[in-house]
Amino acid sequence: MTNTTINNQAFLAACRREKTPYTPVWLMRQAGRYMEEYRKLRAQYGFLELCKRPELAAEITLTPVERLGVDAAILFADILLILEPMGVGLEYAAGDGPVIHRPVRSAVDVDRLQEFKVDKELSFVIETVKKTRASLGGKVPLIGFAGAPFTLASYLIEGGSSRNYVHTKQLFCSDPNAWNRLMQRLSSAVAAYLNAQISAGAQAVQLFDSWAGCLSPGDYEQFVLPHTRSTIAAITSGVSVIHFSTGTSGLLKSIRAAGGDVIGVDWRVNLDEAWQQVGYDVAIQGNLDPVALFASPKEIRSRVADVLRRAGDRPGHIFNLGHGILPETPVENVVAMVEAVHELSAR
Amino acid sequence: MTNTTINNQAFLAACRREKTPYTPVWLMRQAGRYMEEYRKLRAQYGFLELCKRPELAAEITLTPVERLGVDAAILFADILLILEPMGVGLEYAAGDGPVIHRPVRSAVDVDRLQEFKVDKELSFVIETVKKTRASLGGKVPLIGFAGAPFTLASYLIEGGSSRNYVHTKQLFCSDPNAWNRLMQRLSSAVAAYLNAQISAGAQAVQLFDSWAGCLSPGDYEQFVLPHTRSTIAAITSGVSVIHFSTGTSGLLKSIRAAGGDVIGVDWRVNLDEAWQQVGYDVAIQGNLDPVALFASPKEIRSRVADVLRRAGDRPGHIFNLGHGILPETPVENVVAMVEAVHELSAR
Repeated sequence: MTNTTINNQAFLAACRREKTPYTPVWLMRQAGRYMEEYRKLRAQYGFLELCKRPELAAEITLTPVERLGVDAAILFADILLILEPMGVGLEYAAGDGPVIHRPVRSAVDVDRLQEFKVDKELSFVIETVKKTRASLGGKVPLIGFAGAPFTLASYLIEGGSSRNYVHTKQLFCSDPNAWNRLMQRLSSAVAAYLNAQISAGAQAVQLFDSWAGCLSPGDYEQFVLPHTRSTIAAITSGVSVIHFSTGTSGLLKSIRAAGGDVIGVDWRVNLDEAWQQVGYDVAIQGNLDPVALFASPKEIRSRVADVLRRAGDRPGHIFNLGHGILPETPVENVVAMVEAVHELSAR
Repeated sequence: MTNTTINNQAFLAACRREKTPYTPVWLMRQAGRYMEEYRKLRAQYGFLELCKRPELAAEITLTPVERLGVDAAILFADILLILEPMGVGLEYAAGDGPVIHRPVRSAVDVDRLQEFKVDKELSFVIETVKKTRASLGGKVPLIGFAGAPFTLASYLIEGGSSRNYVHTKQLFCSDPNAWNRLMQRLSSAVAAYLNAQISAGAQAVQLFDSWAGCLSPGDYEQFVLPHTRSTIAAITSGVSVIHFSTGTSGLLKSIRAAGGDVIGVDWRVNLDEAWQQVGYDVAIQGNLDPVALFASPKEIRSRVADVLRRAGDRPGHIFNLGHGILPETPVENVVAMVEAVHELSAR
């Protein structure tokens, strides 16, 4: 199967658990450093600068659609962009990952977070969505996205990425009121941000709760689930929501209870077992190990076949990796993966 | 309950799923940096030096038994010590964690690994076991331990800790023969090492497969399970084996299939659900989030109660954290946790 036979409805239909001629596929971070085109742009521009120049961000969003033949485009942006207008001092430090210069550690810090209008402060994202939709011309749908409240809170509190999330867990244990205020703020902001993306043309949205896997099921249920549920409940109805997390094999039922039309799972659980746990009344997305893309095309094909076999003939499977593509991934292997998904799932 | 009422058989009885007067408790890394006594020694000696001086290692092993009132001592050592006599250039670099200067990346590298005799090259560990047993005088049992073949292989291959385990997964995908030879070598070495600890006086052993959670269930079953099974099968019969891993909520059945009298689980799964999955014909160990020890003693007590409630009245629960104590943990909170376990579980 080549790009020319892409069914431009397959992805959205699978989100709604409708039958599709083949299993649609896209990849988290499909627009990223593993691609030469992207590395060339990054040699000229900083990461934040690329996000803030809609013409470039739209170009980056489109490149993998052409190059890989995937069934959806995903907005080129970052989950932390929404934190910048809150006045916490977001910086993408070279080599060190994102840094929050004024982390949120107390009730006072929470109340100091600035209110902002998405249309004004994140207008560059909205503009990217519009430009990308125009350029896509209906070829494939465009996915918008945001970080989920917990994952955003963890960055805000820890001041960057974290290994043990000590400050985050300390805040919800020691000051649940401050925690809840923070999560409510984030939940509202995320919903407004996603709805603005939808108004601008995003046809589905993914909520990334990438670090929810650091939590016990009890903590997730008490401190996270209600807020994620509020976020999802506030998203424009009729638009499919993909609820993604990693390392959450032990709390999939709660993840599902928080909402989402599609549950995105990582490779640490078998797709069939995950789908059984979250229930067949939602679609499922996943779940090849991103490291599998370093293997031979033959091995990749065999692993794709295994994931497809586990999904079975039930409508509502969207093929994806279990987390983002790694920067060192050979692009030809990604192409081989996409082809394998399309060929092996054709019905 | 105070130290004087410790039942010196409770831990070993729980490993065998026999009734105990209360739930026994110990903590991974209970001898470590969160303790002032340990920090004082580390100010004078390098980490490897402490491991290699049996009189000091035995003292470090004993301190938490006195200070915390736990039901078992665990040998002060490190899972990577076994790699040093293989000739790969192990170094504990200050601040950076362990480094393997000559990582194993190919069949040639595997064949270059040096054979060694535990009694000769790791005699300091054996001596520590003997000294500790003599000093304990039957107060509480002594647990020996080793890294499981996969976790050791991941350090050997990556050259240290890793985020994505790309080289490790590449080796088993691209050269399964080399991988299997490496795992066989590690499996034999680990079994010999644990049996030497047992001969010297260790009364139970824990196998740490700390990083098995990076694997898909399929990869675990194909590339890890057979080797862990060989290791466990080769351990002196009659001695309880604790099989510990983290991030493995999605592959607990396979972990259990590899063996072990006790399955150690982390906090990312509810203890009752984990026990149901691994089966009631094994004991279970866990599973408080180590970060819970940063909360107030009241909150800690409530979380201890939750874990105990999930274990229920079934014999065979050993209380522990879901992973090692973090260095910044307040020692008085650890004491409060141990007391809470003893008090709330007394029957």
